[in-house]
Amino acid sequence: MNRLAMSARRPSPLLRVDGARLNAEIESLRRFGGTPDGGTHRVAYSDEDLGAREWVTERMREAGLRVWVDPAGNLVGELDGTDPDLPPIAVGSHIDTVPFGGSYDGTIGVLGAIEIVRTLQAEGHRLRHPLRLYTFQNEEGGKTGSRLLIGAVPPFELDVQTASGFTIREGIERLGGVPEDLSRSEGAAGELAAFLELHIEQGATLERRGIPIGVVEGIVGIRRWFVTVTGEKNHAGTTPMAQRRDALVAASRLVVAVNETARSIEGGQVATVGQVDVDPGAPNVIPGSVRFTLEVRDLSMDGIQGVVDAVQGRADEIGRDTGTLFDFEPFYLSEAAPSSEALRQGVEGAAADLGLSHVRMPSGAGHDAQSMAKLCPMGMVFVPSRAGISHAPDEYTAPEQITAGVDVLMGVLLRTDEGAG
Amino acid sequence: MNRLAMSARRPSPLLRVDGARLNAEIESLRRFGGTPDGGTHRVAYSDEDLGAREWVTERMREAGLRVWVDPAGNLVGELDGTDPDLPPIAVGSHIDTVPFGGSYDGTIGVLGAIEIVRTLQAEGHRLRHPLRLYTFQNEEGGKTGSRLLIGAVPPFELDVQTASGFTIREGIERLGGVPEDLSRSEGAAGELAAFLELHIEQGATLERRGIPIGVVEGIVGIRRWFVTVTGEKNHAGTTPMAQRRDALVAASRLVVAVNETARSIEGGQVATVGQVDVDPGAPNVIPGSVRFTLEVRDLSMDGIQGVVDAVQGRADEIGRDTGTLFDFEPFYLSEAAPSSEALRQGVEGAAADLGLSHVRMPSGAGHDAQSMAKLCPMGMVFVPSRAGISHAPDEYTAPEQITAGVDVLMGVLLRTDEGAG
Repeated sequence: MNRLAMSARRPSPLLRVDGARLNAEIESLRRFGGTPDGGTHRVAYSDEDLGAREWVTERMREAGLRVWVDPAGNLVGELDGTDPDLPPIAVGSHIDTVPFGGSYDGTIGVLGAIEIVRTLQAEGHRLRHPLRLYTFQNEEGGKTGSRLLIGAVPPFELDVQTASGFTIREGIERLGGVPEDLSRSEGAAGELAAFLELHIEQGATLERRGIPIGVVEGIVGIRRWFVTVTGEKNHAGTTPMAQRRDALVAASRLVVAVNETARSIEGGQVATVGQVDVDPGAPNVIPGSVRFTLEVRDLSMDGIQGVVDAVQGRADEIGRDTGTLFDFEPFYLSEAAPSSEALRQGVEGAAADLGLSHVRMPSGAGHDAQSMAKLCPMGMVFVPSRAGISHAPDEYTAPEQITAGVDVLMGVLLRTDEGAG
Repeated sequence: MNRLAMSARRPSPLLRVDGARLNAEIESLRRFGGTPDGGTHRVAYSDEDLGAREWVTERMREAGLRVWVDPAGNLVGELDGTDPDLPPIAVGSHIDTVPFGGSYDGTIGVLGAIEIVRTLQAEGHRLRHPLRLYTFQNEEGGKTGSRLLIGAVPPFELDVQTASGFTIREGIERLGGVPEDLSRSEGAAGELAAFLELHIEQGATLERRGIPIGVVEGIVGIRRWFVTVTGEKNHAGTTPMAQRRDALVAASRLVVAVNETARSIEGGQVATVGQVDVDPGAPNVIPGSVRFTLEVRDLSMDGIQGVVDAVQGRADEIGRDTGTLFDFEPFYLSEAAPSSEALRQGVEGAAADLGLSHVRMPSGAGHDAQSMAKLCPMGMVFVPSRAGISHAPDEYTAPEQITAGVDVLMGVLLRTDEGAG
C-alpha cells in the first residue's frame, strides 16, 4: 500500500458546506422507511432501500457525478479530477439501517459526501484527483458491499437470508448488481489514493467530553469465545457449602475478573460477557456447567491477546480454587483496521482550521472503512451521538454537529487532494 | 404438642431385624418400575405405583397389620398395643419415585418398618402403644399424602397434573382415596405419640465422614427469591469500560457474595443461585438486566433471614459501586421443621446400643416427616447415600447400611414405646 503524503497547509480557500440544505436532505431521506418515533426502518434490499437509492442516485447526478451500480450492488459515483494520472480519492458510507433503527447511522456519510460535491462544484473548485463516492450496500447486514470489494465474502454467504426476507444474492439482483460477476468489483491496491468516511460515534465519549470531532484511530479488532465451566451438578439442599463445585460461582468469579482485567490494563480495550447459559438451570440445583460468551475488542490484536492471556490466567486460579474446569473455544475473529496516521493528522488539521476541538479515539463498532483499509490508506471522522444511543429510533446528532463533521470531511479531502501523489 | 419422654435405658431384649430378608424385599419391589440400570421409575398414581402398593399391602397383612387406605389415599396399617389408652407411634415413608429415579429413596423407610413389625411379632415383643405404619402417597410430587394429613393442600392443587399424567384428584381416586372427603384424613395434635422416619441421606456427608447413622436435627426451611439487577444495555464495542453499568458484572459479584456469605456464617445454612437469565443475552451487547434465583436453606428461619440480610447489604454496596439496582422478590417459602430433641437422643441411644457411630445433621431435602412434625414429635434417621447421589438410577445404599438404619429405627421405636406416656 502506498504511503500517503498529506498537505500540512490549510486548504485555500477554506470551504464550508450548506448545513441547512444538508440537514433538510437527511430529513428528506426519511420518506423511505422513516418511523413516527424519529427512527428509520430501511433494511438492505427492502423496497425502502431501493427507493432511497433511487433518490440518492438523483441527488448524485444533480451534483454532477457519473453514477453506476457495480456488480456487487454498490451505488458508485465519480467526478473527474484535473490530473488524469492520479487515482481516485474515495468517500462514502451506507444508507441501509438495522430493523427499526435510527436516521443518522451511515446516512450522514453519504449525504454529507454529496453535499461536499455540490459545494466544490458551486465554488468552482476542481480536485486534482478523481473523487469517487460509494453508497455501500447492506452494511448493517455484515458490510456486504464493502467486503465484496476486497473479496472477503465467502460464497455460502450469498444464500444467507437477510432482514428484508431476501437472500444476499437476491438482494444484489434487486439493487442492479450481478451476483454471477462479483469478482469484477474487487479492487486492487493502488487503485484508490485514500478512503474517507464520516460517521456518528455510536458511543457517548464525544458527548461526555463536549468535543465535536472524533479522530478515529481505526476499527477495533474483535475476538469472541465460548467459555465453558464444568463443575458438579448437585442437590442444593443436601450438599454443604464446603462440598460444592458450583460452576456458576466459578463463572461469576471469572465474569468479575474479565471486567477487572479490561479496566486494569492501560488502553482502550473493552471486554464483555453478554450471554450466559446455566445447566441445568433450576432454583434448587447447584449448577453443573455454565457456558458464556467472552468478547474482547482492541485496536491491536496483540492488545486483545494480552487481555485474554490475563483472563485465562485468572480462570486457572479460579478453577483450582473451586474444583472446576474452564475451556475457551474461539468462535469469531475480526481483524483490527488501523487508520492512516497521515489521514488522522489530516482530520486534526481540518478540525483545527475550523476551530473545532477534536480527540483521537478507536471505533468500537465496525464500518465499511474497515474493509476499505485493505485497499488504501483509510481515515474516519466521528461526530457525537446523543447519549451514545445508536441502532434505535432515539439515535440523534444535532444538525450543527453534522454540518461540522461534513466540513471537516471536506477539509481532510482537500488536504489529501493537495498532498497525495 | 405434648412433650415426649424417652426411655434412657437400652431396650431389653436388644432386637435386630433380618437384614437378608429386608434387602431381598427391597430388590423385589423393583418388579414395579425397576429399570435395567438399577433405578426405578415409579411415579405416584402410575400403574407401577398401584402395583407396588398392592404388593406392600400384602406384606403388611402378612406381618399382622390391619390395613386400610385413608381418604387422602395414604396406605395405612396398624398393630394394637398393650395399653388401649395410649396414642399410636407412627412410622413410615413413601414408595413413589421421581421419574427415572433410584430404588432406595422412601422405599427403605416403608419396607424397613414392615420388617420391624415382622421382627417384633416373631420375637413376641408387644408394644405398649399401637404402632401405625404410613405409606404416604405422592411424596415426590409435593408430599401430597402427608400434607393432606395436616390440611396443607390448597384445593387448586388437586387439579395439578402429575408426572403420571393424572391429576392429583384422579390419582387419589386411583389409590382408593376419596377426594370429596379429604378433611376426614386430617390429624389432630395429640392423636399420635410420635412419628419416626428412616431415609437415605441424599447427600455425601455420612459417606465422606465414614459414619453409618445420621441423627436428623430437622428439615431445613427454604426461602427463594427472584433477584433482578437493572443496569444499562449498551453497545459492547462503543462503550468504554468506565462508562458501563453492566448488570451481569453486578449480578456476578452478588453470586460470589452469596457464596461467601453462606460460607462465612457459622452453621449449616446453604445458599444457591441456580437459574440465571440475561437480557438481551447477545455476545456483543452489555447486559441491561439480569434475573436470577436465590435459594437459602437453614434449620432455623432466623438463620435464613440472617443470610438474606447480609446478602442484601452486599447487594446495596455492589449496586452503588456499579450503578445498578437490585430488587429481591420472594416466591417460595417452606417452613423449617425441627425434630424432637427427645427423639434425637433416642436415635443416638439406639445407635450407641448397636455400637454404631452417629452424627447430628440437618436434612436439606424435604420429607413426609416435615408434615408430620406439625402433628407430633418427629424423629428421623439417615443412612449414607453413595457419592451423595439421589433421584437418579445410581442412587445406592449398601444392604448392611440399610439393615443398620432399620435396627436403629427399631431401637428408637422401642425406647419411645417404653418412655412415652
